[in-house]
Amino acid sequence: ARPKVGYFYTGQTHDPLLFDGLFETKVAEIMIPPIFIKQESSVYDAVTMLFMYDIGTLFVAENQQLLGIVSRKDLLRTTVTGGDLNKMPVAMIMTRMPNLVTISSEDRLLDAGYKLIEHEIDSIPVMDAVDGITVVGKLSKTSVLRHFVTEAMKQK
Amino acid sequence: ARPKVGYFYTGQTHDPLLFDGLFETKVAEIMIPPIFIKQESSVYDAVTMLFMYDIGTLFVAENQQLLGIVSRKDLLRTTVTGGDLNKMPVAMIMTRMPNLVTISSEDRLLDAGYKLIEHEIDSIPVMDAVDGITVVGKLSKTSVLRHFVTEAMKQK
Repeated sequence: ARPKVGYFYTGQTHDPLLFDGLFETKVAEIMIPPIFIKQESSVYDAVTMLFMYDIGTLFVAENQQLLGIVSRKDLLRTTVTGGDLNKMPVAMIMTRMPNLVTISSEDRLLDAGYKLIEHEIDSIPVMDAVDGITVVGKLSKTSVLRHFVTEAMKQK
Repeated sequence: ARPKVGYFYTGQTHDPLLFDGLFETKVAEIMIPPIFIKQESSVYDAVTMLFMYDIGTLFVAENQQLLGIVSRKDLLRTTVTGGDLNKMPVAMIMTRMPNLVTISSEDRLLDAGYKLIEHEIDSIPVMDAVDGITVVGKLSKTSVLRHFVTEAMKQK
């Protein structure tokens, strides 16, 4: 273990402890349980669930298989254009696999952060690192940012 | 001559360069120009603007004065519950001053990140550091996260 003060050999321009704590953390350590909805569920029910759980994204699944994602943005687009929200199924408005950006539970938080920014998405499904197809969690912009802020607070 | 790598005395557990680059950066350096809307504007127009500019939050202002904020969440709540979206003014659904969390342009990114997480908001109005009342920018979760990811990428 590295002592708190003293002389250290360093060939790097950054402290590996701070960098690792922030960015090398595994996705599995930060991810949260996703909220699932069925593709037959109505748009109205999806909106209700967003507010009940106070989240921004629902995962659409069937038999543990991820079919798609429906976001607050998708739902707003639909609710404002009208139609019978109680009849319209989530399947009609979700972003469907394989057009989804996902990440592995063993990937680093930096990879996750990069994908969230690069693809301009609010959250990303975390897939099992072994089988690659089972959804094991969700990582949101909020959870990544919370980790960064919490780690930084520990430093000062 | 002193070598580029070697032994240096350090009494800190983090590299000030990495920490400063990430967290001590001033809000003013990262903030983006907000999109404003009038409080008489309709909810429908507000939704349209969100999609036109591809943003999550509008600032409601009058004579350069910040009156409130309307978020994607506020708009979704309103569009799903119904009513004439073309007649309903944004004033009816916005979060109004002084119930808004704001930040100064001279504050650190860490303060901004902390407020975004603590108050569970997607973006925060940036106020002029001198007069404290003029809105000079907007800081979103996305822009803070983008800064962290970009700075981290520079390191490796």
